[in-house]
Amino acid sequence: MLTEDELPRQWYNIQADMINKPLPLLNPATKEPLNADDLAHIFAAECARQELDQTHPWIDIPEEVLERYKYYRSTPLVRAYALEKALGTPAHIYFKNESVNPLGSHKVNSAIPQCYYCKQEGTTNVTTETGAGQWGAALSYAAKTFGLECAVYQVKISMQQKPYRSSIMRTFGAAVTGSPSMSTRAGKDIITADPNHPGSLGTAISEAVELATTTPHCKYTLGSVMSHVSLHQTVIGLEAEKQMEKAGEYPDTIIACFGGGSNFGGLAFPFMRHQIKGQRDNVQCTKVIDFIAAEPESCPKLTKGKFEYDFGDQAGYTPLLPMYTLGHTFKPANIHAGGLRYHGAGTIVSQLLKDGYMRAVDIPQLESFDAGLLFARTEGIIPAPESCHAIAATVREAKKCIETGEEKVILFNLSGHGLIDMSAYDAFLNGDLV
Amino acid sequence: MLTEDELPRQWYNIQADMINKPLPLLNPATKEPLNADDLAHIFAAECARQELDQTHPWIDIPEEVLERYKYYRSTPLVRAYALEKALGTPAHIYFKNESVNPLGSHKVNSAIPQCYYCKQEGTTNVTTETGAGQWGAALSYAAKTFGLECAVYQVKISMQQKPYRSSIMRTFGAAVTGSPSMSTRAGKDIITADPNHPGSLGTAISEAVELATTTPHCKYTLGSVMSHVSLHQTVIGLEAEKQMEKAGEYPDTIIACFGGGSNFGGLAFPFMRHQIKGQRDNVQCTKVIDFIAAEPESCPKLTKGKFEYDFGDQAGYTPLLPMYTLGHTFKPANIHAGGLRYHGAGTIVSQLLKDGYMRAVDIPQLESFDAGLLFARTEGIIPAPESCHAIAATVREAKKCIETGEEKVILFNLSGHGLIDMSAYDAFLNGDLV
Repeated sequence: MLTEDELPRQWYNIQADMINKPLPLLNPATKEPLNADDLAHIFAAECARQELDQTHPWIDIPEEVLERYKYYRSTPLVRAYALEKALGTPAHIYFKNESVNPLGSHKVNSAIPQCYYCKQEGTTNVTTETGAGQWGAALSYAAKTFGLECAVYQVKISMQQKPYRSSIMRTFGAAVTGSPSMSTRAGKDIITADPNHPGSLGTAISEAVELATTTPHCKYTLGSVMSHVSLHQTVIGLEAEKQMEKAGEYPDTIIACFGGGSNFGGLAFPFMRHQIKGQRDNVQCTKVIDFIAAEPESCPKLTKGKFEYDFGDQAGYTPLLPMYTLGHTFKPANIHAGGLRYHGAGTIVSQLLKDGYMRAVDIPQLESFDAGLLFARTEGIIPAPESCHAIAATVREAKKCIETGEEKVILFNLSGHGLIDMSAYDAFLNGDLV
Repeated sequence: MLTEDELPRQWYNIQADMINKPLPLLNPATKEPLNADDLAHIFAAECARQELDQTHPWIDIPEEVLERYKYYRSTPLVRAYALEKALGTPAHIYFKNESVNPLGSHKVNSAIPQCYYCKQEGTTNVTTETGAGQWGAALSYAAKTFGLECAVYQVKISMQQKPYRSSIMRTFGAAVTGSPSMSTRAGKDIITADPNHPGSLGTAISEAVELATTTPHCKYTLGSVMSHVSLHQTVIGLEAEKQMEKAGEYPDTIIACFGGGSNFGGLAFPFMRHQIKGQRDNVQCTKVIDFIAAEPESCPKLTKGKFEYDFGDQAGYTPLLPMYTLGHTFKPANIHAGGLRYHGAGTIVSQLLKDGYMRAVDIPQLESFDAGLLFARTEGIIPAPESCHAIAATVREAKKCIETGEEKVILFNLSGHGLIDMSAYDAFLNGDLV
């Protein structure tokens, strides 16, 4: 653990150090690059500015945000001795435990600054979409903290499958609507065409964006994919780097699960900066880390997608994003890791993968729960189905060390707990998962 | 937070310092005091010894238990700035956050040593009863840690109301049986007499004790009430005392919710020792703390019960315990704070209350959820329905400070989170609770 004095006071903006910058976001009609003013119609102006900032490597965390971070940060860096022992591996396995955050995942790290900037800029309402609900829950909390009204469009089928998450959002005062709904033009159109539509992130994004753009003093917020979200999440990696130093070790391998990229980037980017700066300045980096993004086998945009311009949502309402994608009409299988069921990857990660700074692995659902169950039974924390993918990739690497005898230091991100996802564990234990 | 070096290495046994010792447990047939050998037929021998130890104020925590404690302890001591602000109180409110423990509550602090001692003594199976499931979940984890088989009898109606908790126990490999069941003589008798019996802690205790006493190498374990359980929980208060010192403050008031007494005693006893020793040695204590146990209005054993010998279970299978009790056949209302629905209080707390070292308040269910919701919306943590009672008592005290202008330092125990209890918050938000 770090003391309050040791907490990061700036976020790390990897875009500023990258040799090949991410390509610009494009207006789908004109194919012209978007500027911050264009984005500020939807997002908070400061978030729009951060999104496109390719100049400043360090961005000050506002005092009011720091105050809220101090409520729960730093999060623990834990050595998983019991997991190591159970595997019989010589590897040293560490995890950054973001599951002890308010609302149980890393999402709150970006929900707080997004709501803070909205409040500062005179916004009174925020809206978003959510699937399983980790992001919606975090945003509900942050909105309440800064006195903002919050409306969440939750994928209707997820709302029914995980009723506790919408209860959590309501506990924090948010209005939760199952999407598609009759409350927006987009929702009405979808329901009219298909009265039993179960909803998707695509429908929920359309409804939230429509609400934001048609409501005075209302902004849209997002929990992943965008570069400003990964920026806010770098508190994870900046803390972890100091904590690893205190533990007297340095990672050989860094692993996180991958949906849109915010928990991966949050942990990886601060460590990756040494390699990127070393290459840019033509200085030999002392230690090259193996960065691994763990995605689900059924939604393999990094391992099997194409790098191209694509829409961020199914309906095609967003800007065109340069990214690894399975196509914005791709329908991922109904796996329990709802947070990883997204067709594309953030623009920064996409560029870094293209340039060889990192790699990706795809994990079958059963392997992810096998690893998650082993982790729960050894370390005492039930991981979110999303985080199980990072654990499974960690187990693979740790098993390789058994063969080679290497005492590799592996650091992974435990992005959240799975207490609201127990129905998934039930299905796994009953043998009902494929 | 404390460093590993600062973690307590001994538990504090308040019985050794008490002027008026707790009265002995009695054999209900002979009315003779029970000795450790008698208790060791049911409990681990070392737990039985600790239960009756009125001599040693400090008891070493075994190295293997310390190792497991280090996985998650120390827990954070948090100043609830946002709650203070929302209340507009000059009081300084701190809480000890046991909700970040494995399995989400303080229960694991005693589950680990109980399972450790069982393992050391050659036990291969442990069993217990559980209501809402916090204790059953903690025991399942600890049993898995030490390689013990674990069988939990969960109150049947609770099992149906909170299915995620039995999923959690199964995730840790425990066999969970709804009580009453056909797997024991006691269960069969109950079901034969009343085929639709919803179960109670009384039926579940009977079944667990029967399993333990009729199975080779099987011991019974308990999550509260008994003195050795409170002993293990003193790590909470010992840490909190060091943490308050680091914060440069010392509590005027200490508050915890009250079921059988383990989370209350765990936090309070280490602080209370100065007053008890001062009185014993006739030395003026520098600061007298106001200790408050917060119990539900519908199960008010401390505020409205009698101090007398009574059974610990409904069926009358246990020893006779000297305690404040509502009578072992008392049926508490079906409130959501399942962990506080117990008719009696531990023997140590009962003696301390009788001797005026502490006081108790009773909290209506609606007031508890009002306070819990305020806490969630300010501090970002959804508290367990049990813990909401401690928060409500804290709010009462903090409001008094508004009137008096006193900057009292109030410390309460956040014994657990409420993520598995969202149906209770749903009912509260829908106005369905009374």
